[in-house]
Amino acid sequence: MNYEAEYLKDFTYQVFKKMGCPDDQAMTAADCLNQADLRGVDSHGVARLSGYVRLWELNRLNASPNMKIIHETPSTAVLDGDLGLGLVTGPHAMKIAIEKARTAGTGWVAVQNSNHYGIAAFHAMMALEHDMIGISMTNASPLVAPTFSKSRFLGTNPIAVAFPSQDEPPFVMDMATTTVANGKLEVLQRKGEDAPLGWAQDKDGNPTTDAYALKKGGAMLPLGGDREHGSQKGYCLGAMVDIFTAVLSGANYGPWAPPFVAFLEPPANPVGRGIGHFMGAIRIDAFRPASEFKQHMDNWIRTFRNAEPVAGQEKVLIPGDPERELTEERLKNGIHLLQPVIDDLNELARKFNLTFKEN
Amino acid sequence: MNYEAEYLKDFTYQVFKKMGCPDDQAMTAADCLNQADLRGVDSHGVARLSGYVRLWELNRLNASPNMKIIHETPSTAVLDGDLGLGLVTGPHAMKIAIEKARTAGTGWVAVQNSNHYGIAAFHAMMALEHDMIGISMTNASPLVAPTFSKSRFLGTNPIAVAFPSQDEPPFVMDMATTTVANGKLEVLQRKGEDAPLGWAQDKDGNPTTDAYALKKGGAMLPLGGDREHGSQKGYCLGAMVDIFTAVLSGANYGPWAPPFVAFLEPPANPVGRGIGHFMGAIRIDAFRPASEFKQHMDNWIRTFRNAEPVAGQEKVLIPGDPERELTEERLKNGIHLLQPVIDDLNELARKFNLTFKEN
Repeated sequence: MNYEAEYLKDFTYQVFKKMGCPDDQAMTAADCLNQADLRGVDSHGVARLSGYVRLWELNRLNASPNMKIIHETPSTAVLDGDLGLGLVTGPHAMKIAIEKARTAGTGWVAVQNSNHYGIAAFHAMMALEHDMIGISMTNASPLVAPTFSKSRFLGTNPIAVAFPSQDEPPFVMDMATTTVANGKLEVLQRKGEDAPLGWAQDKDGNPTTDAYALKKGGAMLPLGGDREHGSQKGYCLGAMVDIFTAVLSGANYGPWAPPFVAFLEPPANPVGRGIGHFMGAIRIDAFRPASEFKQHMDNWIRTFRNAEPVAGQEKVLIPGDPERELTEERLKNGIHLLQPVIDDLNELARKFNLTFKEN
Repeated sequence: MNYEAEYLKDFTYQVFKKMGCPDDQAMTAADCLNQADLRGVDSHGVARLSGYVRLWELNRLNASPNMKIIHETPSTAVLDGDLGLGLVTGPHAMKIAIEKARTAGTGWVAVQNSNHYGIAAFHAMMALEHDMIGISMTNASPLVAPTFSKSRFLGTNPIAVAFPSQDEPPFVMDMATTTVANGKLEVLQRKGEDAPLGWAQDKDGNPTTDAYALKKGGAMLPLGGDREHGSQKGYCLGAMVDIFTAVLSGANYGPWAPPFVAFLEPPANPVGRGIGHFMGAIRIDAFRPASEFKQHMDNWIRTFRNAEPVAGQEKVLIPGDPERELTEERLKNGIHLLQPVIDDLNELARKFNLTFKEN
């Protein structure tokens, strides 16, 4: 059934409050999950709420973190997230980056000792209203094999970049550095369908169409899918994100990145603290007047939107278009939740003495 | 036949001198092309020298540019390249970025009014000896179609990132944001072989295995190859590079990027000046002590190098490994040039009253 976005956001906020999150942090975290649902990234929305709760119950997540800048220069900072929600440490880091950019032209904040931060775009987009470019990356549970390998050594390690524009909607890219995000495999599992080759490999590293490959010890594949189609580039990108977010910040990298799911134990010999993020804010007028840049962005966007489509395609899309269309649709018609998610939220409601409507 | 790297570098230097480049600039430019040959990027080495000369003859390239910083903040600058060689404006911009990073923690330099800058890695790697991370991007002649489109609106728009390490060689990624670089199609043409699907499309936007597709009005494809395999992500990356290098700097973006080849006229209605680059330098100890970071990089590199290979593969590679191995081999055995390239260099020798040995 469909739920109003505001209803889900408020319920999420209530749960985070019950966990002990300070009011403003509960609000930010709820907003982040809600934006995922609105933008169509269902795997990173309210469906994930119980996952955060389970980590909190295991003391692997701190609901009221004492976040601290542990090192800084005019344009950089390292934030110790104190094992807080990434939904909270991420926006906090982005705010620091934006403040740095005001005076230094750019601001770059690496976060250690954090947790899963929801959708990458949420953080990057915070820069837009300040006439800044926003950049956001995170590492994540290792599920991806480097090219030529069977070892699950990288997360889906997304990159988001948001560029402001004038009259056109902003350019917002947000991409896992794998062929597809894990959520796409889960959709196929629910439908009982096979995956295209290039999405996953089996436990021996052979190409497979098995949508359950990951659950059978296989791995997801870097963008490109195989060497002939440039998977070494997807591997480069995923590795780059891992190094910026975790090696530079002092978090756990590669196979040491702690799993999001509570039923898997974090590696016993950590090389850093928690998982890591990397945030950037670039003040446009540190390069050229913001109005000039934004007018050219409008021209860029219109030019690409008017590129000649191939037969059977109506139009060429601008990064951010699909998510924007879904947001409009979902604000109007509500957000559809699957029954297992509804059951999960009811379970949370019981646990925290809240109510969640079944219909 | 094979030529010693030093011999080719010196010949290249002589040609740039004859064009009127100042001594230090001729040396830097020659080094940049030479590094491409050593690293195995044959399409960006001495084979391209006559292309620069032809642009210079048409006054589309200024051999003795008056490069100027036209805007700056503590961590940023915009460089007007005065239509100089990208082989010169690129390193100049990177030096500014490195200087900015010394005081501000990071330095970011956008370059407008430039030309083709050779291999992206050359510029990024300049940061390594300063215990900095180097980033380099450029836009380029439009040959790539956005997902769902027939229009050639983007260049192969490469991204290079270099991370320093301690005892291991550095992590150096350098990737076109397309499935493959254009040079790979040219290799297939010489061999008379077909291309795998996912590398190019024909003029109507249909998938094709024709290695000559580009010459027949087709286009190269963004990394991912098709929508099912994430080509919209390669499109995002190429677009991001276009915006950082050209919209932010004030250069020509998208279909307005001037062609490298002299036989194609630049678009008549430019939206900026020349082509653009974007350089970044990040001081490691703006985040954590450099020695600590570099030791963790060593651990990262060893861990990934020891990932379990799939059957039939000897080992898992680290970004930069293949280029390093080729460099060693070519420093020892020389650089093989094809006869058309040798003819081309002899032609240049005659033009400039130099000698180039035929055997």
